[in-house]
Amino acid sequence: MPVSTPESHTRVLLAERPVGEPTPASFRVETVPVPEPADGQVLLRTVYLSLDPYMRGRMSAAKSYAAPVEVGDVMEGGTVCEVVASRSDQRAVGDVVLAYTGWQEYGVVDARATRRLDPAAAPVSTALGVLGMPGFTAYAGLREIGRPQPGETVVVAAAAGPVGSAVGQIAKISGARAVGIAGGPEKCAYVVDELGFDACLDHRAPDLAGRLAAAAPDGIDVYFENVGGAVLEAVVPLLNTYARVPVCGLVSQYNATSAPEGPDRAPALMSAILTQSLTVRGFIQTEFVKAHHADFLRDMAGWVADGRVKHREDVADGIAGAPEAFIGMLRGRNHGKQLVRVGVDPEGAGA
Amino acid sequence: MPVSTPESHTRVLLAERPVGEPTPASFRVETVPVPEPADGQVLLRTVYLSLDPYMRGRMSAAKSYAAPVEVGDVMEGGTVCEVVASRSDQRAVGDVVLAYTGWQEYGVVDARATRRLDPAAAPVSTALGVLGMPGFTAYAGLREIGRPQPGETVVVAAAAGPVGSAVGQIAKISGARAVGIAGGPEKCAYVVDELGFDACLDHRAPDLAGRLAAAAPDGIDVYFENVGGAVLEAVVPLLNTYARVPVCGLVSQYNATSAPEGPDRAPALMSAILTQSLTVRGFIQTEFVKAHHADFLRDMAGWVADGRVKHREDVADGIAGAPEAFIGMLRGRNHGKQLVRVGVDPEGAGA
Repeated sequence: MPVSTPESHTRVLLAERPVGEPTPASFRVETVPVPEPADGQVLLRTVYLSLDPYMRGRMSAAKSYAAPVEVGDVMEGGTVCEVVASRSDQRAVGDVVLAYTGWQEYGVVDARATRRLDPAAAPVSTALGVLGMPGFTAYAGLREIGRPQPGETVVVAAAAGPVGSAVGQIAKISGARAVGIAGGPEKCAYVVDELGFDACLDHRAPDLAGRLAAAAPDGIDVYFENVGGAVLEAVVPLLNTYARVPVCGLVSQYNATSAPEGPDRAPALMSAILTQSLTVRGFIQTEFVKAHHADFLRDMAGWVADGRVKHREDVADGIAGAPEAFIGMLRGRNHGKQLVRVGVDPEGAGA
Repeated sequence: MPVSTPESHTRVLLAERPVGEPTPASFRVETVPVPEPADGQVLLRTVYLSLDPYMRGRMSAAKSYAAPVEVGDVMEGGTVCEVVASRSDQRAVGDVVLAYTGWQEYGVVDARATRRLDPAAAPVSTALGVLGMPGFTAYAGLREIGRPQPGETVVVAAAAGPVGSAVGQIAKISGARAVGIAGGPEKCAYVVDELGFDACLDHRAPDLAGRLAAAAPDGIDVYFENVGGAVLEAVVPLLNTYARVPVCGLVSQYNATSAPEGPDRAPALMSAILTQSLTVRGFIQTEFVKAHHADFLRDMAGWVADGRVKHREDVADGIAGAPEAFIGMLRGRNHGKQLVRVGVDPEGAGA
């Protein structure tokens, strides 16, 4: 039964460009009237908002693949929504859709900018996680760049998170060894015991480099880069000839305010690239949608259904709690895909 | 007419692993008996020895794509030689061959480890330069990794050298703009006026970054990396989305004894890789011989013959002068492909 649409709703704006780590003051929560859809548009009620590390980049004005969020604008983000009013024959009231309406309770978009979800096929929240952008990032990055072969060793950090967990599990399906890196013993136990990685190292414990060398005795063939920093430094000396390094994120350095103190590690990185004939390739998953998204939905839905790919969600409640959940996620406090439950799930299901 | 073979010959050994820049003390010149070929082997008299930056890597024990030269062993290197004795039906006395006999006047190798050259087709010294390993490095790195498209901008350093000069000229043939970087106004004038690059910047003059930005107003699509260091630092902020960076050398850092002082530039490099979806790929030309060497010989010989690719050689005289010529080359003192004329050219031609 549809929820009746209120007069006003709550949204979260970028209040200022953070210098270093975002704080609550980086955001402003405000209440405004619910907008009206124009011709061809739909009014959407947000059910789940996805919080992802890339959003830290959108808060900055630095050159990137995407334009930044302007100060005073609504924070961007992927959402699962219910259609509550439609002025398009493509979407009906009650449809559950994937959209990009951002950090707000209601949003108006072109009906064509939404993708309809089938709540009977999978919990709709998974369209933001294992069956959504993070899962596809893992899938496409491995398929296009990483190309793990049977017997090879794949290393990924943030291994309990939505991208890392999918990377390791897809690597296992490909016949490779999966070595994860995660923050704390609880996450590491989950990565090995639940997700089936061959090993998982706590990056907070001492001597990551030595433990990684022990966990990857034949070297590293694929390093799926999503964190940078100390993990990258530990990985580089272990990369084998022709190793591949898909780079989808660098969460450890998103809050940096200047180049870190030396020594300068760029020469050692370039030297490894040269002497080991490495391929280091940055990417954003949108580049590969046309080539691989249909295969992804088929493969990943099958793997989730038969239990070969497991996933976990960490759900905060209420749009006003999004800033705190986001700040916590950048600190690694989440356990699994970070979502915000913004409104009631029309199926009563979900995470 | 064959030169008569002496009893003894001169060769250059690695005397010690250099710490930092090699010095004359890094090498030892000695005179030893000329060896005898065994069954299947040929005795070769060196005509030209090639000196190349990669040899600095072979002097170190650091992990690399190739085993190092051991202290006390003859320095390795590509050579053009005359067969002076043969115990193989594959090579006859008087044949001129490409071999890998290193820094010595005579050498014995398996006949099958040589490639016969046709002195009528091109001066035999070119088999070590524009029609040899350096030319092929440029050709294969562009064809496999750089893939310059019409209207794109290709940047290469050491642009007066054998790899850089070929990179820029092949880029021009591909319809791209070529921007070179070289040491000093004389080399830069040569690169533009003789080789036909669109621009060449003197890396010894101030504000390389600013001048490079002005010379590449549409950004950089291919950076053919052979030097690293300050040039790389100036290039990175100008790289366009999906730019390609073939890495064939890092001559500016070969003599480094430790990681340079900070700031740490690795995060900025990784950030560019991520946000611009860059491909950075190290390679050594041997990887691509099977796929591209026949095409290379055909294409490059044609370009040299019709004047579309020009080249220049810098020839030192006598094997005992090889260390000094090598040290000078690492300092950028050579102008064009660095060779050592070790013995008389059987054709009387050559550089």
